[in-house]
Amino acid sequence: MNTFGNRFRLTTFGESHGTAVGGVVDGCPAGLPIDNAFVNEELHRRRDGDTPSKETTQRKEPDHVEWLSGIYEGKTLGTPIAFAIRNSDCHPEDYESLRHCFRPGHADYTYSMRYGHRDYRGGGRASGRETAARVVGGAIAKLWLKEQGVSFHTVTKGYTVACTVRGVPAGTGNPVFDRIDARLAYAMISIPSASAFAMGQDAGDWQLPPDRYPDQWVDRGEGETLTATNHCGGVQGGISNGMPIVFHVGFHPPVTRPEGMICRREDGSLTSVAPGGRHDKSHIPRLPVIVESMAALTVADLMLDCMK
Amino acid sequence: MNTFGNRFRLTTFGESHGTAVGGVVDGCPAGLPIDNAFVNEELHRRRDGDTPSKETTQRKEPDHVEWLSGIYEGKTLGTPIAFAIRNSDCHPEDYESLRHCFRPGHADYTYSMRYGHRDYRGGGRASGRETAARVVGGAIAKLWLKEQGVSFHTVTKGYTVACTVRGVPAGTGNPVFDRIDARLAYAMISIPSASAFAMGQDAGDWQLPPDRYPDQWVDRGEGETLTATNHCGGVQGGISNGMPIVFHVGFHPPVTRPEGMICRREDGSLTSVAPGGRHDKSHIPRLPVIVESMAALTVADLMLDCMK
Amino acid sequence: MNTFGNRFRLTTFGESHGTAVGGVVDGCPAGLPIDNAFVNEELHRRRDGDTPSKETTQRKEPDHVEWLSGIYEGKTLGTPIAFAIRNSDCHPEDYESLRHCFRPGHADYTYSMRYGHRDYRGGGRASGRETAARVVGGAIAKLWLKEQGVSFHTVTKGYTVACTVRGVPAGTGNPVFDRIDARLAYAMISIPSASAFAMGQDAGDWQLPPDRYPDQWVDRGEGETLTATNHCGGVQGGISNGMPIVFHVGFHPPVTRPEGMICRREDGSLTSVAPGGRHDKSHIPRLPVIVESMAALTVADLMLDCMK
Amino acid sequence: MNTFGNRFRLTTFGESHGTAVGGVVDGCPAGLPIDNAFVNEELHRRRDGDTPSKETTQRKEPDHVEWLSGIYEGKTLGTPIAFAIRNSDCHPEDYESLRHCFRPGHADYTYSMRYGHRDYRGGGRASGRETAARVVGGAIAKLWLKEQGVSFHTVTKGYTVACTVRGVPAGTGNPVFDRIDARLAYAMISIPSASAFAMGQDAGDWQLPPDRYPDQWVDRGEGETLTATNHCGGVQGGISNGMPIVFHVGFHPPVTRPEGMICRREDGSLTSVAPGGRHDKSHIPRLPVIVESMAALTVADLMLDCMK
Repeated sequence: MNTFGNRFRLTTFGESHGTAVGGVVDGCPAGLPIDNAFVNEELHRRRDGDTPSKETTQRKEPDHVEWLSGIYEGKTLGTPIAFAIRNSDCHPEDYESLRHCFRPGHADYTYSMRYGHRDYRGGGRASGRETAARVVGGAIAKLWLKEQGVSFHTVTKGYTVACTVRGVPAGTGNPVFDRIDARLAYAMISIPSASAFAMGQDAGDWQLPPDRYPDQWVDRGEGETLTATNHCGGVQGGISNGMPIVFHVGFHPPVTRPEGMICRREDGSLTSVAPGGRHDKSHIPRLPVIVESMAALTVADLMLDCMK
Repeated sequence: MNTFGNRFRLTTFGESHGTAVGGVVDGCPAGLPIDNAFVNEELHRRRDGDTPSKETTQRKEPDHVEWLSGIYEGKTLGTPIAFAIRNSDCHPEDYESLRHCFRPGHADYTYSMRYGHRDYRGGGRASGRETAARVVGGAIAKLWLKEQGVSFHTVTKGYTVACTVRGVPAGTGNPVFDRIDARLAYAMISIPSASAFAMGQDAGDWQLPPDRYPDQWVDRGEGETLTATNHCGGVQGGISNGMPIVFHVGFHPPVTRPEGMICRREDGSLTSVAPGGRHDKSHIPRLPVIVESMAALTVADLMLDCMK
Repeated sequence: MNTFGNRFRLTTFGESHGTAVGGVVDGCPAGLPIDNAFVNEELHRRRDGDTPSKETTQRKEPDHVEWLSGIYEGKTLGTPIAFAIRNSDCHPEDYESLRHCFRPGHADYTYSMRYGHRDYRGGGRASGRETAARVVGGAIAKLWLKEQGVSFHTVTKGYTVACTVRGVPAGTGNPVFDRIDARLAYAMISIPSASAFAMGQDAGDWQLPPDRYPDQWVDRGEGETLTATNHCGGVQGGISNGMPIVFHVGFHPPVTRPEGMICRREDGSLTSVAPGGRHDKSHIPRLPVIVESMAALTVADLMLDCMK
Repeated sequence: MNTFGNRFRLTTFGESHGTAVGGVVDGCPAGLPIDNAFVNEELHRRRDGDTPSKETTQRKEPDHVEWLSGIYEGKTLGTPIAFAIRNSDCHPEDYESLRHCFRPGHADYTYSMRYGHRDYRGGGRASGRETAARVVGGAIAKLWLKEQGVSFHTVTKGYTVACTVRGVPAGTGNPVFDRIDARLAYAMISIPSASAFAMGQDAGDWQLPPDRYPDQWVDRGEGETLTATNHCGGVQGGISNGMPIVFHVGFHPPVTRPEGMICRREDGSLTSVAPGGRHDKSHIPRLPVIVESMAALTVADLMLDCMK
């Protein structure tokens, strides 16, 4: 189902070239002031990337959030916060050549297998544009988490985003399945083009030498100085220990190539198609805010779950 | 919560040195014959490892499954299948020195932060022994999946387990959040000591060179010959394409050292403790069946979800 | 949470005098044609009642459904169907006198206890207007159920609505908790002003004489002629037997009186207030379509759950 | 699924003549002392009724609870509490005549439609014996609720049980779907043989005269003296107002008759069968503790959900 979270829940909706993308946040605490400027800034980070360049999307959407419910006199009511972002700059005719064939590396074929038919325009539901709804949901989560003293920091390196979350109280998370590290893995691999996840410092190297484990206690240390190193990334047994939570996410590059592509027709035969529509040369600059948003949704959900 | 899955659900229970570990499988289709010998074989793979050696656990439990409900005349009823595995070879006195202090690298400290008190004997709920319940649940899932033509294969390399799942129908999985790759990541990182997850062939190297993407279609190919390569690991947009599903899981080494450890007392001061109880020198040989079990639970859940 | 159902899920949002009420339907099968005229007819039944009269609402909303996602070329995509109904005929100033006091019989006081603050205009989230979103969700469920041969029929008597659902396959529902009768009770009591629920023929009298039980089998009977009587209302052990499903819902009358009311101030003292805003003299004519909508959501959810 | 609740969750398992009935309580707060004598007393109330008589069950089970996990040194760990009650006094041969036919008024036919096959002995999963697991789960909920100042009181009248819950804090429950009254309706109609539910004082008469609504405020009243009457039963808009929560549950009589019954064979033909096995003349004396248990599970779940 298209819902993320149990206590702080985001349901997203929308196809790339339909009327709108958007979402419903259910479970956000009542009385939280919503800073519209911050939400829009986060949306701009998604559209243009942290370092605006010609590499990111060529789509010129204002990406203005329209609030439909759940906010009154600038504060959340505790009721569902629904929002929509209109799809205004659509050129669906660019995608006409894709109506009856499947691009390589995209979800065209698998959606057809799953649903029988699909909105082939601009990737439909599988488009990266759906992540705009995640960024709005994540921004609301961040506003609440900021009040709780939680902050997010990301660094990009090649196709890897490293994320550090500071201020998560010790004791957040659950044993066995609903662990904070497993939930972060789930959240991150749900991002389009994400293919790898690792917990801990330097985990981008996949695995540390065995002699780095375990992290050793610091005498009388508290909070962020609990252990001398933080190779485990702030989580033990699925529960945070109060140290910074550190993880890495690996992505594969965009799969649409400017030189065209060989597509699969419905009868299984192949055909050469020029890439219509607009596509990122690189989507890396857009990823940090999406990683942070999914991390914020995860952490807000588990903090609400574990509050006493 | 201690439940995995939505349609094929496993709830596990039990502490390492309590009365029993066990679980409840809810949602298993009715009429499935339960092959007791197979379930016990899987449990033995967990206890002794695929290559039995002196490296694995020194605990001598028969690990006999007791079925409590849900099976009648050898077949599942469609009602909850409850089972228990008694903890018979306990020496809780071995752990008395840990009552008031926290080991490094273990979940002792985080459980105390989460719950206020804990069963400190042998790791309590955080013990690897809990995975016995996952293996029983996974074995039931495998029995159903075998009828559907789905098989599992694992290869171990240093601290990495590579898993291949064959026979999952194209169109299994969901867009956006409830993706088959994201659900596998969640399942794998929920395994004790798992720290990394990657989709696709050779993903154990964290990331492939960009020019490997996307996988190219094969003319008129079907099923396992759909694409010339399978770098994406059989999943596009969160939905299987019918190719083998391939993923890698990275683990960190056991954190209990034979030479002893520096523990943290409740007042934050440090103390040296000899490692009582029994501990694996290496837990790697035990991991493949756990990886397969969690994969089977994930795939069974999503196949039931996507059946028409 | 503001979500109903597991497989066919409706999330509703919106306050009576906010921007819009609406919802997201997740899990509706792909390829279903959406008959817009039917959806709007159902909305009109809710606004004007089955027998239009001066007794029902004085609010003049066009109640036009705006589809935001999930429908392409007139058919459902299998992705979330989001919709909004704008609140265009608002006179929030009518409710200014209620900003700091609680009406008797309304949810004003309990919402304040739950959330700390509230949107006091026209009942906010607790307004009957929220049911417009349920009617749209229910209409989509009915369109799918019609394809499956399921139909709904209601009869109103004083403050009781009797509902008959025909065509639900034998074997729909679950034992123990997720029973079709328990789910219908949940669905019905969730309707504003509903206060009683009973299964079976003539159940509006609360209970039949004991000698009416059990319903006796008919020789070689099939489907709707399975039993000679249907006092149990088509459900045994929480699962449908193929006979018509029959239940009754009792409502209490509207609690806003034209002669004014004694409200409670925040400090606990009392004050007399004239009823501003617009209120139904009777809401009975509007209830049948809401009862049918909630029944349709329940039945669609369980039929998808039990399909093989 | 066989799980009740979201925060305080009970999963039950077991067939009447299988190895055991039992359950898993997940989400119970850590550190709660478990009073074994109280749990067993509640089980005895279920077996013998509040007024022991010859009318209740003739089955002589000791109904001893065996705790499998989640309790350490007499207190809950916060981990899943698994328990089993052995089925020791079984005479499955009494039911042999029912192997291939369906009793009237029972779930024999509907289970076969749902699952294809069934455990026909003593009702299998549909037996009233499953409620023993609910009573244990409810007893644990009551122990926690007692610490929170919540108490339960029931009165039986003909086939109706009236229940009053005192001490639920104002602001417990949710708007729209997850309402405390709707959740109680769901919980009550899930009890075998329950057929009607009504909120409020004297609701056993199905509906009060319209002029009883709404309940009027009391000047400066607090808690249980908030309103002059309590016709609404302590809930407004799905959320408790701090007054006693009052509801009624109607049951139909036992459907097995001592004079025998006409059963339906698998081919649809009829056959006369003498009622083997043991059956209650009346199950009314056993119902109060089951009603209280389901109410306790509902209230504990929603209080944990709404705590700040």
